[in-house]
Amino acid sequence: MSLIAVGPIVDDDLPLRLAEALEEYLVQRRDADLAPELVAALTELVLGGGKRLRPTFAWWGWRAAGGAARGAEADAVLRALVSLELLQCCALVHDDVMDRSTARRGRPTAHQAFAARHRRERWAGDADHYGDCAAVLVGDLALAWADDALVTAGLPGPALVRAWRPWQAMRTEMMAGQHLDLLGGARRTESVEAGLRVARLKTAAYTVERPLHLGAAVADAPPNLIAALREYGRDIGVAFQLRDDLLGVFGDVRLTGKPVGEDLREGKRTPLMATALGLARAAGREDAVRVLRHCLEGGGPPGHDLADVRALLHELGAVAVIEKRIAALTASGLCALDRAVVLPIARDRLTDLAEQATARKW
Amino acid sequence: MSLIAVGPIVDDDLPLRLAEALEEYLVQRRDADLAPELVAALTELVLGGGKRLRPTFAWWGWRAAGGAARGAEADAVLRALVSLELLQCCALVHDDVMDRSTARRGRPTAHQAFAARHRRERWAGDADHYGDCAAVLVGDLALAWADDALVTAGLPGPALVRAWRPWQAMRTEMMAGQHLDLLGGARRTESVEAGLRVARLKTAAYTVERPLHLGAAVADAPPNLIAALREYGRDIGVAFQLRDDLLGVFGDVRLTGKPVGEDLREGKRTPLMATALGLARAAGREDAVRVLRHCLEGGGPPGHDLADVRALLHELGAVAVIEKRIAALTASGLCALDRAVVLPIARDRLTDLAEQATARKW
Repeated sequence: MSLIAVGPIVDDDLPLRLAEALEEYLVQRRDADLAPELVAALTELVLGGGKRLRPTFAWWGWRAAGGAARGAEADAVLRALVSLELLQCCALVHDDVMDRSTARRGRPTAHQAFAARHRRERWAGDADHYGDCAAVLVGDLALAWADDALVTAGLPGPALVRAWRPWQAMRTEMMAGQHLDLLGGARRTESVEAGLRVARLKTAAYTVERPLHLGAAVADAPPNLIAALREYGRDIGVAFQLRDDLLGVFGDVRLTGKPVGEDLREGKRTPLMATALGLARAAGREDAVRVLRHCLEGGGPPGHDLADVRALLHELGAVAVIEKRIAALTASGLCALDRAVVLPIARDRLTDLAEQATARKW
Repeated sequence: MSLIAVGPIVDDDLPLRLAEALEEYLVQRRDADLAPELVAALTELVLGGGKRLRPTFAWWGWRAAGGAARGAEADAVLRALVSLELLQCCALVHDDVMDRSTARRGRPTAHQAFAARHRRERWAGDADHYGDCAAVLVGDLALAWADDALVTAGLPGPALVRAWRPWQAMRTEMMAGQHLDLLGGARRTESVEAGLRVARLKTAAYTVERPLHLGAAVADAPPNLIAALREYGRDIGVAFQLRDDLLGVFGDVRLTGKPVGEDLREGKRTPLMATALGLARAAGREDAVRVLRHCLEGGGPPGHDLADVRALLHELGAVAVIEKRIAALTASGLCALDRAVVLPIARDRLTDLAEQATARKW
């Protein structure tokens, strides 16, 4: 009685199936009696949007290695991928506390919402500290539930064992990347290489490489296929982060959900800013060095003039350098994919995803 | 060639074997290139002391249900119990950030040590915020590694599946307890019941009941044995927390590693303080109500006179009420243990542990 289409469009309902798996998991975990406020915040964040990039890459890792699109095994894989969105929930909530971000996807961040409630109810103590503490707990819960979702997804024992290696690496890499990012700010690191290392750990490994690795490992992919997918993932992942950094400065709030220029205000040490500083120094542009340093020290654009900093990044040639690097990384990532023996539909979708993740958006 | 003793002293080297398992796990995870500062802080905390209560209870859950003291299975169980100490590391580090504690086991807390380094190196930005962020990351890493340790311990597949249920419940209960504790402070909760609920979640479930449950589940214990061990765990766990609360006010820094009277200074809302408030109100002692409220609002003992508050808690009869409750809970916990069919050596050790955890220490 199934009316499900077969052939090339068999995976087209992936977003829907991921959303169903997420909802099902969260409904099953809801226990009105245990930490209802934390669970509500977690649920709102997980179901409230996001591009589902990590589970999508993991799914195509599974499919690339010959995993089935439908059936009991595929359903267990979808349940396992819930873990990636829960891990991302932990990363977002804890990052927002660390970066003191005020908005996420156009809404107040978790710690801000908790602090606002504290103020509204005239509770005792420091509202901001309460907000931070409650948000740390939401992230902790999301991290614990991420592991629960993977272990209890119903994967066959050996598949779970295979999945655990990339999963283990990915969580440690994500946290190491976040710490490097924090250290970079504290130490006023200005090197392009340091910024790229953060991008490799925080985005490439965590968003593309390891999710693909995880999906392929569940499908018991041979080592050379895993190596090729990881190579694709590393390059596309860094390119994606470089694009995201450009969006952080030039993007539109309607696309990013973050206040315009937030990265500049936060003094985020991106390869874009490091490149601009290097170019300004090489050109003897002391005025430009001062403006960029002002941003990097968290002072935001001097005189709050975002347009001036944007113009400066173009003028110095930093935008062009980063665009070139994005193009080169995208090409080499796709080249690694070309060399791999993967299911044709997976090759097509991974090519599309690489382009979507790295394309200019303004 | 084995010279290992058999019979009643076969488990006597448990502390040594746990320490070995912990060290082995941490050596294996050390990767000089990934987050060395976070790993160093985590390692120092995990290897730096602690009573190893949780793995000890879990071990006796395993032994109570007939698990072997030696051999490959027992070794895998010991490796699995590393997860409990890593989880505790997460709980301690994140709790210390939330409570703004300055010392732990006689040394600076993790966030304090990170903040001190920030100041020493004259890094950019707010040293305290940096310390909090780095400590949140240490806790995150410990939480992720806790799950890694359990999954990769080498337990047979079905044993891991059985272990995951108490493990899953325990982590959520711990976080729910921490949030309730936080909320209690914000809402100025003064009820004994609210304090007991925090004790049930944060200590009883997390320190005694669920570790026993986990050990017994790995050994495939029958449901009635698990129920009896959990009942013992709930009662002994709450009694242990009540004892700890008394130690927090009356204890000696040499025993607790925490500055004397820290709980009073932090305004910790314990059943002890709630009982004292209730008794003061019933006796129409407005002076005593004021002193206790001053402590609960985080002001510490008025005039910093710890001795006065100690005398007041005795005088109101609150210490006697809590001592009586500890005795009753210890008796009922031991009674649950008596009814269960367990290995005699496990019964003896669980009886000892109950007494050690709940006995007067000054």
